[in-house]
Amino acid sequence: MNAAKYRCQACGWSGPEDPALLSCPRCGSLLELEYDVDPELPEPAELVRCRRGVWCFSRQLPKLGPEPTLGEGATPLREVRLRGARVLLKLESANPTGSFKDRGTPVALASALARGIGVVCEDSSGNAGASLACYARAHGLKALIVTPRTAPRGKLKLVELCGAEVALAESRESARALAIELSRGRGAIYLPHTTMPHHVEGMKTLAYEIFLQLSGSPSHVFVPVSSGTGLLGLYKGFRELREWGYIDELPRLIAVQSSAVPPLYEAFWGEKPSSREDSTLADGLTLERPPRLRAMVEAVRATRGTVVVATNEEIRRAAARLRDYGVVAEPTSAAALAALEKLSAEEAVDEPLVVITGSGLKLIDELLELTNI
Amino acid sequence: MNAAKYRCQACGWSGPEDPALLSCPRCGSLLELEYDVDPELPEPAELVRCRRGVWCFSRQLPKLGPEPTLGEGATPLREVRLRGARVLLKLESANPTGSFKDRGTPVALASALARGIGVVCEDSSGNAGASLACYARAHGLKALIVTPRTAPRGKLKLVELCGAEVALAESRESARALAIELSRGRGAIYLPHTTMPHHVEGMKTLAYEIFLQLSGSPSHVFVPVSSGTGLLGLYKGFRELREWGYIDELPRLIAVQSSAVPPLYEAFWGEKPSSREDSTLADGLTLERPPRLRAMVEAVRATRGTVVVATNEEIRRAAARLRDYGVVAEPTSAAALAALEKLSAEEAVDEPLVVITGSGLKLIDELLELTNI
Repeated sequence: MNAAKYRCQACGWSGPEDPALLSCPRCGSLLELEYDVDPELPEPAELVRCRRGVWCFSRQLPKLGPEPTLGEGATPLREVRLRGARVLLKLESANPTGSFKDRGTPVALASALARGIGVVCEDSSGNAGASLACYARAHGLKALIVTPRTAPRGKLKLVELCGAEVALAESRESARALAIELSRGRGAIYLPHTTMPHHVEGMKTLAYEIFLQLSGSPSHVFVPVSSGTGLLGLYKGFRELREWGYIDELPRLIAVQSSAVPPLYEAFWGEKPSSREDSTLADGLTLERPPRLRAMVEAVRATRGTVVVATNEEIRRAAARLRDYGVVAEPTSAAALAALEKLSAEEAVDEPLVVITGSGLKLIDELLELTNI
Repeated sequence: MNAAKYRCQACGWSGPEDPALLSCPRCGSLLELEYDVDPELPEPAELVRCRRGVWCFSRQLPKLGPEPTLGEGATPLREVRLRGARVLLKLESANPTGSFKDRGTPVALASALARGIGVVCEDSSGNAGASLACYARAHGLKALIVTPRTAPRGKLKLVELCGAEVALAESRESARALAIELSRGRGAIYLPHTTMPHHVEGMKTLAYEIFLQLSGSPSHVFVPVSSGTGLLGLYKGFRELREWGYIDELPRLIAVQSSAVPPLYEAFWGEKPSSREDSTLADGLTLERPPRLRAMVEAVRATRGTVVVATNEEIRRAAARLRDYGVVAEPTSAAALAALEKLSAEEAVDEPLVVITGSGLKLIDELLELTNI
């Protein structure tokens, strides 16, 4: 048995995996998961027959006990042309609840299931909450989802459909404190994608899949970044693939934020974006103080990547372009395509892949309005 | 070159594939496509690396010219428990426009693309129209979609998002005549899934995929049936798999209709269902006079299947059950699960598979209301 441990990257403290620990009990820093990982990926043919979602990669994931799934992952890779050049779109919108969050949720939920806890709680701008609501429902747990008042109606409706209780916070930032408070009061286990490392572990499978689908890796991966699970999962997954000899070089990770909420941009560049706006169409990119900011800067630097912000006008144009590709994606995903358009105007971007993080079916009214250019 | 031909199954007439022909020029019967088919399916590993959607099976599909795709197919298979027994759910809701129609659309569109025609037209209760709208958009064609006035808002919004022109017909039945009239007036090519055999050919890939995912076939396949493309595609695909030696027996095909619009039930059983209702929650099952009715009866008979109708109350309960599985499916798909519940109360259903034909994200408001039991 390959028991997962928590380790503090700052002070070296280590102890058994325990979701009640929100940070290092010694120094207060964020915790990471340590566990044995098998450097042998499954064969592609095994994946076609596998019905275990992210747990098809269970030899590369922490062993926590039961392995909940809704059939996530194995999402399509599509090839489109942008000004004549080939671009790959990874359609994470095809996941069971319509977003890439479905890769992290099952790993976090596994931790709750292993402890027999009946109520789980998350704070989220929308997609992570909808994901946890539906995974919890399917596995007999009650979910309590804290979202900002501004969360899109379509995402809230999905949370509600899956029978979760919704609590509205004044802002994305205050949602965390409210979630912790409510969790305590209700005997719930708090499974935040913003800090709980399980979400990043599940997200690693995105890198594995891209590698298996391409038999290699793209030159650049464009990913929208708010809490950083996507960016950090890709970074960890591609690093493992390099360590295990599958690839020689890491793809450049291009983190994309909105010009309204650009904390990673500011940390990376040491200045505010010139195009700062007051609000953003990318409703998934609204976290002002992501707890994993330092690790995110490191992931971008170590892969010779960069941080790009997208303005509302750029998001609008990219959303229309995605629609023209026949891709039904949410505005947050359009920000990533907008960043590719911007960066490729400045430098050569050979074989880019854009992560289409969420389905546009949840925001069809908003999309209709904003692509009506 | 394996040129596809039209053949009339009634009088034997044969001629080149031509989408302008809506029926046999000699006797008026429906036409089928004849073309060479390679009995060697792709290897599962090839499928993981393939980015061509249904055309990953191009050796088993008609060669028409360009092969349009939005990355359809390769949808997940999920395992759930129904009263302790294992049930497989084929999540066609994960397709690019959120429904199984995305398997037939690219084959029909290929015919239009081969002729350089700039406008395509379809009549549809919703999903087929949304599918054609988005595939057409992505391939530079204009789409004209005729839907009944009663089509759900979420499906119409997707048609609109993809920039198609919408014409509203008084009923599902009158939509065909209006679509033919509008096509003539606008120089459009009419690509009806109700009669054009290309849609059935694309749908064959559903059977291939199920076989490759299971390394075998289920005992029963439950599929909602309106125009019959799903049923007939499964029938054709599984027959080919048997002919090619992959499987020994065809799965029993269980066609599911609503108790409000049960033409196949009536043709199969020779009587009206005892539970006839005035309207149905299954908005996708509203075609009163499916042109392929005779072939549908034959598909059910030849596989020792049956036809089951679902009442609104049964659909409602099945929709709630799907929600409890964490499956975000439209009410039409819930009808198929309802039919399984009904049939398994009467006879042994060993290894059933239920086709979840469409995403519930398009009908989230309706789902919220109807699952609020």
